[in-house]
Amino acid sequence: MVVKDLIKELRQAIGKNAVKTEKEDLESYTFDATPDMPTGLPDVVVIPESTDHVQAIVTLANKYNVPVYTRGSGTNLSGGTIPLKKGIVMVMLKMNKILEIDVENLTATSEPGVIIAELNAAVAEHGLMYPPDPGSVDTATMGGSVAECSGGLRGLKYGVTKHYVMGLEVVLANGKIMTCGGKTVKNVSGYDMVKLFVGSEGTLGIITKIISKLIPAPEARKTATATFTSIDDAAQTVSGIIKSKVIPATLEIMDNVTIKTVENFLHLGLPIDAEAILVIEVDGIPEVVEKEMDAVARVCKANNGNLKIAANAAERDGLLAARRAALPALAQLSPTTVLEDATVPRSKVPDMIRAIRAVAEKYNLTIGTFGHAGDGNLHPTIITDEANTDEMARVHKAVDEIFDAAIKLGGTLSGEHGIGIAKQKYLLNEFGESGIEALKAVKRALDPDNILNPGKVVTI
Amino acid sequence: MVVKDLIKELRQAIGKNAVKTEKEDLESYTFDATPDMPTGLPDVVVIPESTDHVQAIVTLANKYNVPVYTRGSGTNLSGGTIPLKKGIVMVMLKMNKILEIDVENLTATSEPGVIIAELNAAVAEHGLMYPPDPGSVDTATMGGSVAECSGGLRGLKYGVTKHYVMGLEVVLANGKIMTCGGKTVKNVSGYDMVKLFVGSEGTLGIITKIISKLIPAPEARKTATATFTSIDDAAQTVSGIIKSKVIPATLEIMDNVTIKTVENFLHLGLPIDAEAILVIEVDGIPEVVEKEMDAVARVCKANNGNLKIAANAAERDGLLAARRAALPALAQLSPTTVLEDATVPRSKVPDMIRAIRAVAEKYNLTIGTFGHAGDGNLHPTIITDEANTDEMARVHKAVDEIFDAAIKLGGTLSGEHGIGIAKQKYLLNEFGESGIEALKAVKRALDPDNILNPGKVVTI
Repeated sequence: MVVKDLIKELRQAIGKNAVKTEKEDLESYTFDATPDMPTGLPDVVVIPESTDHVQAIVTLANKYNVPVYTRGSGTNLSGGTIPLKKGIVMVMLKMNKILEIDVENLTATSEPGVIIAELNAAVAEHGLMYPPDPGSVDTATMGGSVAECSGGLRGLKYGVTKHYVMGLEVVLANGKIMTCGGKTVKNVSGYDMVKLFVGSEGTLGIITKIISKLIPAPEARKTATATFTSIDDAAQTVSGIIKSKVIPATLEIMDNVTIKTVENFLHLGLPIDAEAILVIEVDGIPEVVEKEMDAVARVCKANNGNLKIAANAAERDGLLAARRAALPALAQLSPTTVLEDATVPRSKVPDMIRAIRAVAEKYNLTIGTFGHAGDGNLHPTIITDEANTDEMARVHKAVDEIFDAAIKLGGTLSGEHGIGIAKQKYLLNEFGESGIEALKAVKRALDPDNILNPGKVVTI
Repeated sequence: MVVKDLIKELRQAIGKNAVKTEKEDLESYTFDATPDMPTGLPDVVVIPESTDHVQAIVTLANKYNVPVYTRGSGTNLSGGTIPLKKGIVMVMLKMNKILEIDVENLTATSEPGVIIAELNAAVAEHGLMYPPDPGSVDTATMGGSVAECSGGLRGLKYGVTKHYVMGLEVVLANGKIMTCGGKTVKNVSGYDMVKLFVGSEGTLGIITKIISKLIPAPEARKTATATFTSIDDAAQTVSGIIKSKVIPATLEIMDNVTIKTVENFLHLGLPIDAEAILVIEVDGIPEVVEKEMDAVARVCKANNGNLKIAANAAERDGLLAARRAALPALAQLSPTTVLEDATVPRSKVPDMIRAIRAVAEKYNLTIGTFGHAGDGNLHPTIITDEANTDEMARVHKAVDEIFDAAIKLGGTLSGEHGIGIAKQKYLLNEFGESGIEALKAVKRALDPDNILNPGKVVTI
């Protein structure tokens, strides 16, 4: 029996304890954090501890012609790690060493299983910061985060994961190792393979080592909320802040549905009749922080916003907690939470919010919208129940229309959650046929036998 | 005759005046700014004025199975635009419109023939800046700059071209159009094709439209030089500045050979016995600028540097002129200037400078070294004469050893000049066989018939 032979060889290659075949082990890896997705049971789960292990696993996957689904903590939100076609789930959590923090070159080198927050804690001791901060920062791994190109709350000022990956060691589909990039700020040697692997969702290669760029941690920060009775005023404030040449570290929005739900959940004293709340944080040296928050205050006032600046760290934590509670608060309203990731140019945020509202009304759904207003990355979140077939049919239509609207507004299908399996059907709208063919050509080039996370991003 | 038919069809497709076949026209495109390179005479030169023209040209190139070499102003420094295998040279200089400056979304959309400095002048009117600034900024085009992923003096703080390309329209090798990316800060839809085309040197697709990221122009800047009698002190100063959490906009170095040559050329009063000069510029809001220059002064003092801060704009221009004169000053010393592009992690700059000196001594060559100390991107520049066969043989050996040293120090073959034809022979050292095979697979995937700039980056 082929699977039995594969398992035997896997045990020989990486050790018995690193190869799991019990039903309960396999079942833990049939899903990820994405709701409303198909599931799949793998043949075997492997837990490598070194690049050699990864090479051995991929070599055996080739020999037995079975797929390899690489995953970290499984926090991804587009079904990217679900083992649709049996085969090997490879869990990277034991490759979890921070190999180096290089203070002179402002880089960190880590294995893929390092948790993002752990890396940040380690570099903070040197006064440094690794800026990407997806919501899952306390759970998600560096490897998963690089493979998905995570975004987060600091995207506007600091960029996202791709801006912080300088070098990679990757095990290719053929089992060979490729290193690309390094510790140099500038590198134009060959094609930019580093950026090609970032965000490739485990479909082009398996990341086994990451050299990340670090930056000096900001000396000071100031955080505020601004409350609005009109969503347009809130949107004008977002534009106005940028126009005043202030690029906040955080510039988040919550709509009325989200505000009411969060208040109901946490009792923070949020104004439940507000149409929108912005959460704004500026950072840098103290003089900059003062100056920028003054500019923010002027813009808020001009747009009828009610600004409240956190007086101390505890108040700041409260303001950010409200924003971070948006998803869990919405999620406890009903059994199923469909969290979407519609992203538009910043100037189109009000249009997008209006489009989402119209869709909610049309399909009689509860949609709370929150997200990263500063970078146009909104998270319309549909509160529903997978068991309610009729409602789920409406949810699917609503999601279709939301993405249609995002693309029409010059946006993209995914700002930070990836394509996985969840968004493949929309990909044609964004890329067109020639674009899809180019994506498939790249996949075929680097994984001709379709071993690596097959059926994700593009299906070849 | 095949070429005759091709020319006839090109004329029908894009107009008679846009198709050049006179010998003197063809001869202008046999070379680019790179010294010591082979030349090649194209069959025909075409000057498209629209994406439709580009599509028509590529379609005919496929029909007649001839290569297309896309070029802007030809300022590249790795032989990337030389038409080695006859065929069509496509000059993008007439696709030179700035299509939009979007102040709300901080983006500019331009055609590939726009000169970088012209874009910067246009966005400056809105208080904005397009940060990449290669030495050729007044001549080089946006298209060429994106295709080569230009670097420049601001790389350390602001990054390089790839950090500022948000979206592209590209004509693929099959003549079809692909658009990727857009105006959204975040985009993880499909593979990062934008970054794959950036720096691909015209070998994967032809860039016909560019959406660039802009940033608010800094309110203030302060510029200084620091003079050192020891190269190690200068290098320690570079590290010390970064360690003090200051990231200067510019942090340049000139060695003694360069200093003497520039002084001899411009008579600026530079200290010709100094071992090294650093040119340092900090920018931002005035308070930041003051604070950061104070920190720079402290670090310089601690490392025996003699700091001179420009008192006004005229003095600042003088300091930067000295640095910008490095290449032209060295170039006028002798008929041939071999400008290299060895890049190492910042902490290895002193090792790299020592390695270059040892090579100069070993091969009895004059090598002036200057460059972007802050990002480890050095330009060892060999002063020689192509007619002197014996010396050129030593130059080639010296260049081999310089790149060998860069790779051994954890660096890269090219920080900002690209691979082209000049550096292909070193690529194996950086990427290894499996890496080269992956690069070739990507090239084959997007240009299976090897129509686009064949023989550059990797030869398939």
